[in-house]
Amino acid sequence: MGLVQQALDGNPRSLSRLATLIENDTPVGRRALELLHPRTGSAHVIGVTGPPGAGKSTLIASLIREIRSTTRRVGVIAIDPTSPITGGAMLGDRIRMLDHWEDPGVFVRSMASRGRHGGLAPATAGLIHLLDATGFDIVIVETVGVGQEDVDVTSSAHTVVVLQVPGLGDDIQTIKAGLLELADIYAVNKADRPGAEDIARSLRALVGPLRMSTTVLWQPIVVKTSGIDGIGVAELLKAIDRHRAHLVETGEWVRRATAMARTEVRSLIWRELSRQLRENGGTTFDRLIESVVDRRMSPSDAAADWLAQRSTP
Amino acid sequence: MGLVQQALDGNPRSLSRLATLIENDTPVGRRALELLHPRTGSAHVIGVTGPPGAGKSTLIASLIREIRSTTRRVGVIAIDPTSPITGGAMLGDRIRMLDHWEDPGVFVRSMASRGRHGGLAPATAGLIHLLDATGFDIVIVETVGVGQEDVDVTSSAHTVVVLQVPGLGDDIQTIKAGLLELADIYAVNKADRPGAEDIARSLRALVGPLRMSTTVLWQPIVVKTSGIDGIGVAELLKAIDRHRAHLVETGEWVRRATAMARTEVRSLIWRELSRQLRENGGTTFDRLIESVVDRRMSPSDAAADWLAQRSTP
Repeated sequence: MGLVQQALDGNPRSLSRLATLIENDTPVGRRALELLHPRTGSAHVIGVTGPPGAGKSTLIASLIREIRSTTRRVGVIAIDPTSPITGGAMLGDRIRMLDHWEDPGVFVRSMASRGRHGGLAPATAGLIHLLDATGFDIVIVETVGVGQEDVDVTSSAHTVVVLQVPGLGDDIQTIKAGLLELADIYAVNKADRPGAEDIARSLRALVGPLRMSTTVLWQPIVVKTSGIDGIGVAELLKAIDRHRAHLVETGEWVRRATAMARTEVRSLIWRELSRQLRENGGTTFDRLIESVVDRRMSPSDAAADWLAQRSTP
Repeated sequence: MGLVQQALDGNPRSLSRLATLIENDTPVGRRALELLHPRTGSAHVIGVTGPPGAGKSTLIASLIREIRSTTRRVGVIAIDPTSPITGGAMLGDRIRMLDHWEDPGVFVRSMASRGRHGGLAPATAGLIHLLDATGFDIVIVETVGVGQEDVDVTSSAHTVVVLQVPGLGDDIQTIKAGLLELADIYAVNKADRPGAEDIARSLRALVGPLRMSTTVLWQPIVVKTSGIDGIGVAELLKAIDRHRAHLVETGEWVRRATAMARTEVRSLIWRELSRQLRENGGTTFDRLIESVVDRRMSPSDAAADWLAQRSTP
């Protein structure tokens, strides 16, 4: 596979083409991942999440600059919740990242999350492997909020950074609403706004040590950042690097890598079953659904029927 | 099943017990759903979603009051993104809803979304069926944001209400970020805040007619509401009822019910496969994952292996 070799040699166009082939789950993409797999395992995967309007993309653009100043290479996979119909609403933010479009040490890819066959989780994992194998030291996965689609940041990253931002109404309520105990690092972004220090203080008070395994504890770090003028971004990268060191020293790195592999293999199994479901489903599945809508069959009977059918060759 | 008959007779305690049995996917819960299925199909299922801090629970409490003033019965299933560890962060809001705790025409159930075996989507569908069959005219499903966990409001409700709220930073950006074309009705909540009219105007300008099937169009309705003092809530209920009438007149009701059944049966199939995966997985799955982490096997080979194993008896 010449394309794989070219990507390994650092050809940005080959890398980009390969990313598309992997993202779309093509035979070439699949084959490439097989070839690349032995070379994976060293990139530090960082999940960045937070509510819409928290300034994730701007902060990540700042973080890219900071990472590049240490000569490390960085890839960003941004999962865009907008549909393919509306088009990229985040495009403005994305373009800001493209300060770096001619720097081969930076790779940015935005993926639409809706209207996608084959699932977002395996596509994301595939891109992570591609970047990992081709020498990107850090891979940032940007998602909106908790539990977006089937990509669960907590089990698909080594380090989870959660953004909070002042001015989202009832701040403490917002902080509590779902994001609390999953973060390794909190970035209170838009730190120039009133209320930023209050949020940072509340977080420091609320967030206890994270139990990683039965014996390893990690006290989440809270940093105040401003993506637009880069304030606090060096501290954020320092916190990220400290977390990586902690993972490696405590053996937690392998535990997280194992959790990530588990999530990925499950998502690949789901994708394959989902494909079978779609293919099988052409008539039979739809007929089962008709029976459910007509109240001739319950949903669970329909599910059992479909499964029974699948196991008969 | 005496419990089912008691719930059908309007006994609130039996209803509540049955809800728990269904939520936890117990054999009794499953059997109850079988018995209830022929009686389902008339409740109007309304998905209410929006960002944290938009005041969903308070607005729903107001909406409950409005619905009760028309003597209709209403159930609420609130999907709480907080983990079982932190406990219900939304509890304050939830308790406000419990104004109605002694009214048998109101049923409220909050479900934690994380740390749940068996999936949230089938549990939600099961509760909807229970409420539908026991004479609740309206069932409201409250979720946070788009694509929360595996519950997709767009394919699990007849009518989707999306809340927007002034003051979430870059308002138009926020509006655009993912929520745009899925709503049948927009509620601009906290309408007393500055900026509410701007958001309402932007929404009216941005949101074109929704193509429901090839021929049916629906122009989403934008209402300004204030959950706390009940302003605009009568208009919101009017919009909800108008949407229901529209669905029924155009035949779209059946199309949406079919989409909902499809989503439910798929989620039941996933739950069953997921159970098999867990059971099978005890040793074999973990051993496959080990090989992936050790780079002896690629993730897709591991997935293929597991699937091959499953089909051999």
